[in-house]
Parts: sequence; structure tokens; C-alpha cells
Amino acid sequence: MNARLDSPEMPVPDARAEAAARARQQQLTKPPGSLGRLEELACWFAGRLGSSTPQISRSEIFVFAADHGVAARGVSAFPQSVTAQMLGNFASGGAAINVLASLEGCRIEVVDVGVAGDPELPRGVRNERVRPGTRDLFSEAAMTDEELTAALGVGERCAREAVQRGAQLLIAGDMGIANTTAAACLICAFTGAPPEQVVGRGTGVDDVGLARKREVVAGALARARAATGVAVSGAALSGAALSGVAVSGAHGSATDRTGAARQLFAHLGGLEIAAMAGLYTEAARNAVPVLLDGYISAAAALAAVRLEPGTLPWMLASHRSAEAGHSAALQALGLAPLVDLGMRLGEGSGAALTLPIIKAALALHRNMATFAQAGVDGGAPAGAT
Amino acid sequence: MNARLDSPEMPVPDARAEAAARARQQQLTKPPGSLGRLEELACWFAGRLGSSTPQISRSEIFVFAADHGVAARGVSAFPQSVTAQMLGNFASGGAAINVLASLEGCRIEVVDVGVAGDPELPRGVRNERVRPGTRDLFSEAAMTDEELTAALGVGERCAREAVQRGAQLLIAGDMGIANTTAAACLICAFTGAPPEQVVGRGTGVDDVGLARKREVVAGALARARAATGVAVSGAALSGAALSGVAVSGAHGSATDRTGAARQLFAHLGGLEIAAMAGLYTEAARNAVPVLLDGYISAAAALAAVRLEPGTLPWMLASHRSAEAGHSAALQALGLAPLVDLGMRLGEGSGAALTLPIIKAALALHRNMATFAQAGVDGGAPAGAT
Repeated sequence: MNARLDSPEMPVPDARAEAAARARQQQLTKPPGSLGRLEELACWFAGRLGSSTPQISRSEIFVFAADHGVAARGVSAFPQSVTAQMLGNFASGGAAINVLASLEGCRIEVVDVGVAGDPELPRGVRNERVRPGTRDLFSEAAMTDEELTAALGVGERCAREAVQRGAQLLIAGDMGIANTTAAACLICAFTGAPPEQVVGRGTGVDDVGLARKREVVAGALARARAATGVAVSGAALSGAALSGVAVSGAHGSATDRTGAARQLFAHLGGLEIAAMAGLYTEAARNAVPVLLDGYISAAAALAAVRLEPGTLPWMLASHRSAEAGHSAALQALGLAPLVDLGMRLGEGSGAALTLPIIKAALALHRNMATFAQAGVDGGAPAGAT
Repeated sequence: MNARLDSPEMPVPDARAEAAARARQQQLTKPPGSLGRLEELACWFAGRLGSSTPQISRSEIFVFAADHGVAARGVSAFPQSVTAQMLGNFASGGAAINVLASLEGCRIEVVDVGVAGDPELPRGVRNERVRPGTRDLFSEAAMTDEELTAALGVGERCAREAVQRGAQLLIAGDMGIANTTAAACLICAFTGAPPEQVVGRGTGVDDVGLARKREVVAGALARARAATGVAVSGAALSGAALSGVAVSGAHGSATDRTGAARQLFAHLGGLEIAAMAGLYTEAARNAVPVLLDGYISAAAALAAVRLEPGTLPWMLASHRSAEAGHSAALQALGLAPLVDLGMRLGEGSGAALTLPIIKAALALHRNMATFAQAGVDGGAPAGAT
């Protein structure tokens, strides 16, 4: 199924439920505002789940794995074979995201969108291979338009199935050696930030590797620009400005802008990143919020918003990655992460880690007594700000 | 029971268990360092719980409530009566800390260390009243030395009982209208930071109330200094310098320094703050770590470390409060909080909120597969930093 273009019917959050939640927060037995971002979270989810007292009973995690042709250029500290090996680790429950999903009682599904070498799939890993890894984005387009559509479609199908199971919050994670290189290209292309700001050490390349990675990203951006005729803006963007304006050379209709974004995504992206973007977009179409993870997730989120701006209101940022450049991506999206714990693992681990904070915020909102119920003087104390 | 002075037998963390945990972290299936502070947390608890694969099966929360004579000076946005009313809310499970304790399966005990007016105690609230609120710290010593000892003893007893029940992590929370004024005095006294930096809006005083609160704190500090002959240092302190050196005029023995700290604590403290400090110190004596909460908790922690420097290695900071001056206190303690969510409620709520992050860090450490177990290439990848 094709990724749909800017759809006028994209759902918007329920402003009435959000306002009702804000009013309730003022009546709970605490000084107004004293729960800080937990109060904002409760109101945000009220709008997204369409209830003044929202509850998340079911959240699901998808880990999308794929390889990257650019790995051959020595941009990662780990060999490409680790992507396939990690599929086995996910399947047997030994990876970080397995541990976190188990703690939170989340369904987790591992999806092979295109691991190199077509290895035998471990039991329990879903086969959605589009191709055995992307082409080398430094020298040619990583994907054809058809391959991009197929990879987006993988994420879209996963999202739809989760929605049908009753999921109220979706997390997409990634596994793919060298995917911080592809993500850096996308973040540069979709925010206009320079490679020096966006390219980091990924799994841990040394200084020589980092310099090489920056050269690869800069070269890929120049190549994609020449091949597509699409230039990227040099200006950082606010969240409000995300509806395609950074992609110059495509000032025309929404369809033109989306087309330009698709070209850049196919040239510079990864199969798993496209699946994540497809999941984000389809979740939004179904009025289901998504909890972003780290650096790779931010690249997918930027791409999703370029393809379909109405996706943005359904996105929540979980954590700030230690990977250089994640901040630039979050800033362009206009999203502030909940925590900053120096994590840079991917897999959805940062998002899964913050789930209990979100659940706690909603439980406080639902279960705390009001001033009236508790017989406590308050609600509008003299001098309270 | 009296608070003991600097005891040479204060337990120290288990360096061998911590080192073993660090070695294990290098073998788990992730790039080294990619779980950021979660890795540090696992190693920290390894040292405190004396196991290379630590687990927290039982954590307990104590909420200490008391009133403050200084409330009569209009330093809070809420009337003093709210302290007693909130006891009822805690007892019936309607407060924020009740909701969070329930989510985490923590035992919670609410302790009246000295609520004003001697109200009838709600069922389930523990009566440990030392006196019906402190005296007005602006005009006289808040507590006598005997009252301070009694309030410290309340926390010490609570800690010992929790340890006997098998608790492996303790949280102390606070409730007491006007207690940010007392806490500000203590933070100024024990760090040397000026009132302008340390005094904030508490539950939400307006600009006039904030100016009044600053005057009250400055006046109380001057009064306590004159009454005790103990001067406070003008320099901010590093955590390593906390063993009493900021309290000048008492350059002599450890007993002298502790005595000076006790005098300041009695003059400027609160009954619930003293109980928290007593809990922190006694937990450390029993080699049980404590998870600090916000602003009031930081004041109690500073006092505890002044009274007994060996308490510091058993303290972990949970969150950064929105209350101005919490950062100065944490900096003096040399502690970096896990999260910053703009919370400023007290009750132990910030600490309880971060418990799932800590549990997740320990679960990842225990349950993730090693590279060898998973058959994944890694552990010492080429070029990894």
C-alpha cells in the first residue's frame, strides 16, 4: 500500500478533552503546576486519547532491523554482521529492548525490513524484507522510490495491526549497523543543519572514523542534491515551520513538497528508518500517539512530518540521545524530550524507559483526590501563581 | 536515641561489587556506554547493595509532616491548616505520593513529627509528635537541641524498622506549609549560597510574598549567626568539601564541626526536615541507600552530611526541583539528578517517580545477554570508544 500524501482528513487532537484535563489538574490536591511536565503529559494524552482522564492500557513496540550499504565505508565501530546477529538476540529476549518491554508489559515485535545477506530468520522475527540492505548512499540512491514505498508500507501495516489490537501508544525502535550515518544525512537534509553539528560517533567510532563519517555524510548530501535538484535550507526550523518549507526547489503544492521529501528520503534513508516513518504516519492517521526514541527515530519522525505534516501533533519525544545532532532534530520538530540520561542505544530503549513516567503522570491525573474530595483548602490559594 | 556523631565505623560501599558490575556492563549486548546513566546506576547500586547484579525487591517511603512557626509571617501561598488537612489526604490515599507508591508497590508510612494544633490524627498516620510545629525561626531558634535530637530520632527509628523489614532503598518525603522557608535557611547555612539564589516561590507565593520570604530567610540567618557564633562560608562547596569546612568558627575537631552544624540545624530547621536527616543518616549506618527527593530533601541531606559526612556515599539524587536553589544544594552535595521534569511538590514524589528508571537500570544489568551468550560480535569492537 502506498504512503498517502498530505491528507486533509488527518485527525487532530481533541481540544475539548485536553481543556477538561487542564481544568482537572487545577483541582487536584497539589499546588498548581507543582507536578511540572507530568501535568502537561496528562493533558497531552487527554487530547490524543480523547478522554479527560486518559489511561494507557496497551502500548506496543516494533523494532525494525535493516542493513546499510554505506557500512562498507567504515562508518561504524561494529561490523555489519552484528545486525543479523542481533536479530537472534532480540528473538531470544536478550537485548535491552526485550528487558524494558517485559518490565512494561508491552507487546514487542521484531521486523526484518532488509538485513544483508538474507540470513535465516530466527523464530519470531517477522519477515518483511524489502531488499538485502540499502545501496551505498554515498555513491547512489539508497532506495528506489518503489523500495521506499514498500518500506514505508511495512511500518504502516504494523501500525494498523497494532491499532486493531487496541494499542493506544506505539513505539518504533531500530537496529541497523551504520544507520546513524543514514539518519545524519536525513537530519541534515530535513533541517538544514550542517554535518559538523549532526554527525556523531554512533556506536562509538574513533576520531578517524568520525572524520570519515562526516565526509561520507557531506558527500552524500551533495550527491543527493545534484541528483534530485532538491536543495536543503540552511536555516534551522521551528516545529511550526515543518510543513515542507526547508525543502527548497519545491515551493509549489503540497504534493510537490512531499515529492521532494520522498526523493531525499529514498536517496539518503534506510529501510528500517522508512518503516519507522510509515508507522508514525499511519499511527497519526488512526489518531494513535507515538513515543519517539532517539537519533534514528528523530530522523524517521522528520521524514514522516515532511511527508505528512499532520503527523507532528501525535508525536511525543521521550529522551535526548547522547548522539550529537539529536538536539537539532528535536528542535526542528519543536519537541522537548522528557529525560536526558546519556543513552544512545536505539532499539526503542529510550522510549520504553520513559513509559513508566508517562503512566505515572496519567495515574496521578486520574487517581489523585481533588481539593473538594479531600477537604483540603486550595484550588485557588491566595497569592498562588 | 541520640544522633551519633561522626562514627568511624560508618559503612562504605563495596568497591569490589561495583568493579564487577562495571566489568559486566562491558560484556552486555550494546555498544559500551550506550545506556548512559543507566549503566552508572547499576554500578552504583552494585556497590551499595553489595552484589555485582543488584536487585531492589523492597523500597519504602516515609512522609514526614510538621508545621513551621514561620508560616505566620506569610511566606507560603497556602494556610498552615493545609498541613493537617493533607494528613487526612495521605491517610485516605488521595495524595500524589500515594498514587506513586501504589504504582511501585512501595510501603508508605505517614509520620506526624509535629503538626500544629495537635489535631486528631487520621487512622494510619503515625504519631511521633515532638512539638506542635517549630517556633518562628525568624525571631528565635526553631527547636531546642533536645527537640532536634528527638526529631532526628524519629527518622532514625523509621529507618531502622524499614531495614529490619528488609528495605533496600529508602525515600523520605515531606509535608509542611512554609517548609521551603526553613529549607532555604538550611541550604544557605550549609552551602554559603546567598538567599537571592536559594529562596524560591515554594507552593507559589507572588512577587510580594517572595520578597518577604527572602527578607525572612536573610534575617533568620543573621539571627542564627549572632546567636550561635557560627558563621557560614560565602563560597559554594564541592561534594568533597562537605565535611564541615563551610561552617567556620568551628575549625576544630569533628565533634566541634558537628556541634556547629547541630546548632544551625536547631535554629533554622524543621521537625520533618530533621526526621528526614535522621532517616538518611541511620540508613547509611545500616548500609542502605537513600533516594533523595527535591528541595526539602536536599536541605535534610545537607544537614545529614554535615552531621555525619559518611552519609553522602549512600545518597542518590532523583530529580531536579523547579524550586530555585535546589541546584545549589545538589551542587554542594556533588550529586547530579536523574531527571528534570519541573516538579516541585515534595512528599517524596520526585523520588518515587524515578524508581522505575532505577529498577529498569538494574533489570537491564541483570537480564541482558552478554555478547558471548548471544553470539554477537562485540565487547571490544574495533574503534569503539
